[in-house]
Amino acid sequence: MSVYTAVNETEVAAWLKSFSVGTLVELKGIAAGIENTNYFVTTTHGRYVLTLFERLPREDLPFYLNLMAHLARHGIPCPSPIADHRNQLLGELHGKPAALVTRLPGVVVAEPDATHCAAVGSVLADMHLAGQSYGGRLENPRGPKWWRETAPRVMPFLDAPRQALLREELRFQSLYRLQDLPRGPVHADLFRDNVLFDGGNLGGVIDFYFAGVDTLLFDVAVTVNDWCLRADGSLDPERSTALLRAYHATRPFNALERGAWPVMLRAGALRFWLSRLYDFYLPRPGELVHAHDPEHFHRVLRLRIAESDRLPWVA
Amino acid sequence: MSVYTAVNETEVAAWLKSFSVGTLVELKGIAAGIENTNYFVTTTHGRYVLTLFERLPREDLPFYLNLMAHLARHGIPCPSPIADHRNQLLGELHGKPAALVTRLPGVVVAEPDATHCAAVGSVLADMHLAGQSYGGRLENPRGPKWWRETAPRVMPFLDAPRQALLREELRFQSLYRLQDLPRGPVHADLFRDNVLFDGGNLGGVIDFYFAGVDTLLFDVAVTVNDWCLRADGSLDPERSTALLRAYHATRPFNALERGAWPVMLRAGALRFWLSRLYDFYLPRPGELVHAHDPEHFHRVLRLRIAESDRLPWVA
Repeated sequence: MSVYTAVNETEVAAWLKSFSVGTLVELKGIAAGIENTNYFVTTTHGRYVLTLFERLPREDLPFYLNLMAHLARHGIPCPSPIADHRNQLLGELHGKPAALVTRLPGVVVAEPDATHCAAVGSVLADMHLAGQSYGGRLENPRGPKWWRETAPRVMPFLDAPRQALLREELRFQSLYRLQDLPRGPVHADLFRDNVLFDGGNLGGVIDFYFAGVDTLLFDVAVTVNDWCLRADGSLDPERSTALLRAYHATRPFNALERGAWPVMLRAGALRFWLSRLYDFYLPRPGELVHAHDPEHFHRVLRLRIAESDRLPWVA
Repeated sequence: MSVYTAVNETEVAAWLKSFSVGTLVELKGIAAGIENTNYFVTTTHGRYVLTLFERLPREDLPFYLNLMAHLARHGIPCPSPIADHRNQLLGELHGKPAALVTRLPGVVVAEPDATHCAAVGSVLADMHLAGQSYGGRLENPRGPKWWRETAPRVMPFLDAPRQALLREELRFQSLYRLQDLPRGPVHADLFRDNVLFDGGNLGGVIDFYFAGVDTLLFDVAVTVNDWCLRADGSLDPERSTALLRAYHATRPFNALERGAWPVMLRAGALRFWLSRLYDFYLPRPGELVHAHDPEHFHRVLRLRIAESDRLPWVA
């Protein structure tokens, strides 16, 4: 249960008076979430999610909220932040920065098939196109600079083969000028637990709090590295092709992206291996959730390297 | 059927490529609507309404579209205009200004009860509060200035008692400085056919193309004059009280509004009597819809005058 800040119904009911969303019917804590405290809020007018921001830099919050508002305005099924009577998306509750966003329909699909993957590829391309007109600027805080800073801090905890792999991968990635690829706002964490399916339909993309400006292909790689994996960490050709084909139908890849694809799949694996090592060996004080096993992305990275010459792609 | 401009699936499918809403599944003309051509558009991602603007001044369209976007951003259940890849809400299709908005759930309720009226009163107050932070400016084009211009044009078609009533009501209204009342963006046409109910819930408020900046109380009067009428045009006390009480719970009336209420109910009736006389006797070339019977609002105006000393209100 990751409710770090407990708020009660009286507080929330009073806070809701600054919005045009009716009056409180039900308030319920949400177990998921590492960075924030989340509550389901049901009012006389609809269903919302209340988020209290626990750790994210306050100055970065407008980037996330305005990005969601921008994408929602473009028809992307993502949480739409509700503006209060001062026309602000970011407020304060219980001494914490807080936002109210729409609650989307659907549930997480733990074992997606090719149809799910195609829907995810399609909405990801839509998000990338819609994001091009977004004016907000926040460099992906888990980009190459963060990799270089973080690697030395986790290195002491690793055995020799893992140290060698990490060093070698950082060297390999540094050879590529990936900054020349098409860029824009990216979700950067589009894992299975951040997409809701409502029956056969994609009901929503959630949790934009790792978003930032980065190469669009990085977002595709992160997504494929989760949605298209078999149990052993290898890529399932059918699901990979379905996701990439659907993406490509809306936003065709360019030649640079085609060339960078194997590198980017490794970059996507490296980024999550590093952050999971970091969360595992250097947990923050007060961390209430169990860190993910870093070994998963160690395996994914090794497989992406081994598979380099036979990766799924679309023309 | 008020589809003035016929567009085909090929045109719409091509036009949708400039949005992030998926691909066209179904296109279907909508019979309702006087000022615009409307189509239901179903895509792989959702349900929308396509509007081609036939008559509204092009320079006024951003006021309407930005108002809907503003209210949707505040959680009001109204059509949310979808921005295209240039981040524009207003585009062009088949040589006409055009917009794509979300399609809301529900159906029109022809015979509302007190519960429906309370829901309408509540959402109207929400809209008024949320509208206070809207920056767009467009004076209600059917305000007192328009009354004074329009009355002489319809006068020749009226019999002596109706001429006398119209003259007297214009004189009566001119005695009041209603501009001192709280103002803001108002829907100005919140009749039964512009609210959708989805089961017991208010699914949406639609058709903002008569909106403008005016006194908020005028909007309440227009709404009560439709939602709370009995068959003979008199106000149903139960429904009137339900609507006003629900409105007041969110935005309490001030003393000025209390004093102006009887005048405003007459103003709301006058405005629609005049526009229906105008549409009936001076139809625009190419008018395809049957004009409403002007007699209805003649009767409503006479009743509001007769009832002046026993109008429903809330403390």
